[in-house]
This record gives sequence, structure tokens and C-alpha cells, in this order.
Amino acid sequence: MSINRAAATLVDVPRGLAGVVVADTRIGDVRGGEGFYHYRHYPAVELAQTRRFEDVWHLMVHGELPDAAQSAAFTARTAELRALPEEVRAALPALAAASARSGPLSAMRTALSLLGAARGFRPVYDIDADGRRQDTLVACAAVPTLLAALHRLGRGMAPVEPREDLSYAANYLHMVTGSEPDADRARAVEHYLISTIDHGFNASTFTARVIASTGADVAACLVGAVGALSGPLHGGAPSRALDTLDAIGTPDRIDPWIRERVLAGERIMGFGHAVYRTEDPRSRMLREIAQRFGGPRVDFAVEVERRVEAILAELKPGRELHTNVEFYAGVVMELCGLPREMFTPTFAAGRVVGWSANILEQAEDSKIIRPVARYVGPEPVAAVPAA
Amino acid sequence: MSINRAAATLVDVPRGLAGVVVADTRIGDVRGGEGFYHYRHYPAVELAQTRRFEDVWHLMVHGELPDAAQSAAFTARTAELRALPEEVRAALPALAAASARSGPLSAMRTALSLLGAARGFRPVYDIDADGRRQDTLVACAAVPTLLAALHRLGRGMAPVEPREDLSYAANYLHMVTGSEPDADRARAVEHYLISTIDHGFNASTFTARVIASTGADVAACLVGAVGALSGPLHGGAPSRALDTLDAIGTPDRIDPWIRERVLAGERIMGFGHAVYRTEDPRSRMLREIAQRFGGPRVDFAVEVERRVEAILAELKPGRELHTNVEFYAGVVMELCGLPREMFTPTFAAGRVVGWSANILEQAEDSKIIRPVARYVGPEPVAAVPAA
Repeated sequence: MSINRAAATLVDVPRGLAGVVVADTRIGDVRGGEGFYHYRHYPAVELAQTRRFEDVWHLMVHGELPDAAQSAAFTARTAELRALPEEVRAALPALAAASARSGPLSAMRTALSLLGAARGFRPVYDIDADGRRQDTLVACAAVPTLLAALHRLGRGMAPVEPREDLSYAANYLHMVTGSEPDADRARAVEHYLISTIDHGFNASTFTARVIASTGADVAACLVGAVGALSGPLHGGAPSRALDTLDAIGTPDRIDPWIRERVLAGERIMGFGHAVYRTEDPRSRMLREIAQRFGGPRVDFAVEVERRVEAILAELKPGRELHTNVEFYAGVVMELCGLPREMFTPTFAAGRVVGWSANILEQAEDSKIIRPVARYVGPEPVAAVPAA
Repeated sequence: MSINRAAATLVDVPRGLAGVVVADTRIGDVRGGEGFYHYRHYPAVELAQTRRFEDVWHLMVHGELPDAAQSAAFTARTAELRALPEEVRAALPALAAASARSGPLSAMRTALSLLGAARGFRPVYDIDADGRRQDTLVACAAVPTLLAALHRLGRGMAPVEPREDLSYAANYLHMVTGSEPDADRARAVEHYLISTIDHGFNASTFTARVIASTGADVAACLVGAVGALSGPLHGGAPSRALDTLDAIGTPDRIDPWIRERVLAGERIMGFGHAVYRTEDPRSRMLREIAQRFGGPRVDFAVEVERRVEAILAELKPGRELHTNVEFYAGVVMELCGLPREMFTPTFAAGRVVGWSANILEQAEDSKIIRPVARYVGPEPVAAVPAA
């Protein structure tokens, strides 16, 4: 039932499809040399600093920033979608129980799959652009609700119902922690969520697009993306950087701890990025947010950053190694009351909007993404040996 | 957190990565010009005709056919894994209820995700080859149980417990229909399941490999593959060919029905294949199986095939259009008592072994599969307009 292209047209490319252009996109890009990334044609950090999450969400899935009336309508429309269908609500305790041994991402993978089924999502190629967009809104709006409910159920607490009067970020914090966050914390998490919506092409975004290219429904695409995000090589674990801060412990231990790791050739979590040769623009934004909160944890993080950069400059001269987004993302999320196990799920609560934009863009193309493999095993034998 | 390759190394390739070699494989290949496909280095149809499903499963995930002792051990080991963990069993009624509006593939997607979580699957890069293989066995062995249980729950019937004393195929039929199949029907479905395990590279197999390349767990990979399989462009809907037989209705209507469609430029479901220029070897095998059962449905299908080929030869001379695997797969599954909505899920019950072999092969590689997109939108503006 599957189709393999004729062997005559095989095209050899770098391993892992590195640098291979699989799509033209209007969603955004990363300019590593400039320390700059953008959504559509707007600087992403500026969007985070000046706009609401819902406005950027609108930008990603509609292609343009909303005017005031569009913003209000989009916000109201998506806020209504935060509540889960009753059959999903009913299934969540069983899902949380069955997922107790695995991480919150795999529980979310299951819950998102269920949500798509319960909402009757149809193949993206069988519905029009509005229908597809609506399915992405249904999914994205529900992700914070699913994440918070699964988290609380997993800890033996009742889920907190979503509130339509709060922003996407404030409502998420409210549902996770059980209390309404102050404006600064809600806004800090909103900054973070906006900054993680998209960041060039990556394995989860690519997965979403491969599945979308078969015409499958939006949930199938997003569930695949969540699966890819859960892979250790995907990156995206802000908790690791906090683990590093904990492991170092106190300011006097910074230098010996870092030197030992660097000399042993180990990576320091939260430092270094494959694209940025400058400071990661997300890191700078999140450090500023953290410093506005202040406190010993923030001071310690800033000191660790300062010392690591100095030691790396000394021991690895010429390498441009700076903090990446993970370093201060963990600090900020901790300041906002998010438990460490919810850091990567919170990342997903922003990224789901970027995946959605990519699914919608891919669905406009009618060409399935299907490369080939080259058989390199032994020549087939004439006959199968008897059992 | 994601990484984009430097723009300097962009590689342009055909749309949809057609013909682009993404991996070397030892799992199998399709030789369209010869009407031949193979698993490892054995002809696939011969494997289907001479071996048990479990032996071919062993071949796919261990790389070699088992000897008698290995076969018995592998069969016993996988049969034990058919029973579901209690927390998954408990969740299935809620899953079936929530998935009532969607197809059985999306219910299976959710259930497989849950199974992986309940079994505590860990990232493939965090466990050794034996651990990874074990996770694939756990997942594959449970797929028929999940499919049958969700199907029965969806129709208001109690699930039928798996039996360890039956073959993979016989147990599946037993769990779907509620009664033990006769040997001919069990063997016919076994032929079909073996023949669908793998068939060159395709979008679902590729999806599984992309997710595996991030190091995610086996369930994440398989859930993505199920999602891709659910896409209309993926192919794999044997029910469509039966729908065609139903639409034609009676032998006297064959010629006008077919001529009208062909002259209108429509595709006849169950005919034509992108690779095979000869008869599809799976189609030939399944026709022989159907003809051994015999009966008016089979005679009608054979007559439709004969007439379609003659009309296509007349109206589209030079095109080699023959029945593909879907045509007789539907006929055989119907003869074996499988309801039409379970045709594609049954395909998945074979293909999950092929996906597993591909996941295991991909996990031996440490390189993430991550192509790039080229930004083709407008140049970023200097400043974001105020809200």
C-alpha cells in the first residue's frame, strides 16, 4: 500500500537531511549570526515584549497581527475552547493513572490524541483552510488545560477549571498552581510562551509536517510532534539547566565545578547553541525578566553565567559559548511557581502554536513528504529455508 | 531549543523529498520492475506462504529467521504480551467512548500512546538494543488486543480476552469476532498480515524513523506512524476496493460502470501502483487465497478484475494497470469475517512490525533527522507595530 520511488532517481544528501530544504516557509526564520529570529516578518523577541500571546498566535495561524477588534474576537473565541469535552474530562483520571510511570509529555501525547478523536477532527485534506485552522485552535486552546489537569491528577489533586477571563498564560498558571498569578508572573510566562512558539525548523516541527503531508488530521500531526519533542536529542529541557545550578550549589563552588566539567570535555547544560554565534536573544530577554524579579536564585544564576563564560573564554578561546534559552527559562519558570517537571510541557504549550502554523502551511501543499531508503543488505535468496 | 542549520549549506532536492535517500536499510526493498519485494534477504510472498507471522516478526526485529527453538520461545514470549496492563484495560471504555466520532485508527493512536506510558517505555537512546526490541515486542503484541477491544467497546460489546494458545492472526480474529476462526481463515489473515509488514519506505515508516531519530520512546514513534497512516494520501484503504465492488453491483454493470469512470479520468480503486509495472505480487497471492475460498463474491471480484484490465488495456494502451494489494485484501478480509472498518486497522496490525524494525534500525544511528525550511516571506520589519 505504500509506494517507493523508482531507484533510478535516488538523490544522495547529507546524513540526517542536514541542510536539505524540505519546504519553503513564510512562518519564520532564525539568523544565527545576527542573534535574531522572527515570526512571519516580525522580530520574535519584540513580539514577546510588546504583544499578548493571543495576538502572536493570531499572527502565526492567520499570517497577520490582529487589529483591536480581531484581537478581542480571537481571544474570546480561543478562551471558550479551553474547556474540555466531557468525554475527555472523564477519561483524564484513567490517563493520568496509566501514565504515572512516564513523563507528563507522554500523558499529554495521549490526551491530545484523545481530544482530537473526541472533537471529531477530520483529515486536513478533507476540510477547507478555515476548518483546519479551527481544529488547530481547538487543540492549542486545550493544551494548557490538558497539561494542568494531568499534572494535578498525577499528584492526587483535582483539576482546576479553566477561566475565560484570564490570558492564555495567566489561565495556565492558575490551572497548574491552583491560584491566580500576579500580573508580573503571568506576563513573565507569557513572554516565555511567545518566545518558544517557533524557532526555525526542528525535528518536532518537521514531524508535524510529514504527518500533515499525508493529509492526516491535526491531532495526528500534533501527537507526532509531541512524540518527537520527547526525544532527548530534540533539545528543550530547561530543567537540566536548573539541575546544574543545584549541582553547583554555592558561589564558591562555581569555579571548581565548571573547570572540572570543561576540562573533562563535558557539556555545561544551558550553554552553547548550534546556530547562535552571539548571545541567544531569548536568553537575554529571559535574564532581564529574571532580574526584574531578583532574589538570591537569580543572583546566583547570573553569577554562574558570568563565571562559565569567563572560564569557557579562558579554556576554549575563540568558541562563542553563551547561555541558551534553557538557562534562564528554568529560572523564570521556577520564579513563576511552575514545578520543574512542567518546564518542558510548558515549552510545548507555546510550541503547539508554531506546530499548528506549520501544519496549516503544509496542508496548503498537496505533495506527500516521502523520501526513500537504500537497501544495503545482502541480495535476496532464491528460496526461503523451510521452518 | 531547536536548531537550524546554517543557511550556507542549503541543499535543494525534489519536492516532497522524492527519491532523496534518508537512510541505508537492511530491512527490505521493493523491485517494482520485477514485481518483487523482500524482507531482509527473503522474498516476502514466500515468507507469507511458508512461515508463521511470529517467525517473520522475529526476522524483522532480530535480523534472522528463528530456528525451531527460537521460534517457540519467541512465540511464547510475544503471546504473553498480548494481555494489556490493568490501567490500560480500565481506560479503554473511556477511550472508545471519546473516539466514537472518529475512526478506529485514531482510537488506536490514543490507546497505543497510553500503552507506552503505562509500560514505562523509555527513550530509545537511553536503553540498549535489547530494551528497545523488548519495547517494540510489547507494543506489537498489544496492537491486536487494543484494536479488537476498541472495536468491540465501540459497538457496545465486551472485549474478548486474548488467548496465548492461538497464533497472532487466529487470536486477532478471535478477539474481533468473538469466536475462534477455522484454520483456513486464520491462515488467510496470517498471509495478509505477513505480506503487509513492510513495503519499502513510506510516509508512516519515515515518520516513525524521524521520531526515533530524536531518541523518543517506541510508543512515540509508533503513534506518529499510526497518525501518518491515517492520512488519505498515505494509501492503505482496502475498504475502498470493496466499495467499488458494491458500487458496480452486478456482472452486467461492470463494463458501463468502468468505462464511464475511465473515460471521465477517474481512478478505479484497487487498480494501479506507483512502483509495480507488473502484477502486484501481494495481489496475486491474495487472489489465490480468495479463490481457494471461492463463492460468488470472489467470482465477481475476479470478473471485475478481468474486465477492468481489458478495458484499461483498450482505453489506456501501454499503461500497465493491474490490481494492487487493496483489491483482494478487502475480499480476503471480508471472507474472514473482519468488518470493513477494521480493514485498515488490520493492515496496521501487520505494519506495526515493519515500523518496529525501522525504529530499531534508526535507533542504531545517532544522527537526528532534521532537514530545513527556506524562509521565503517578506524581510523582517525593524519594529513591531503597537497593538
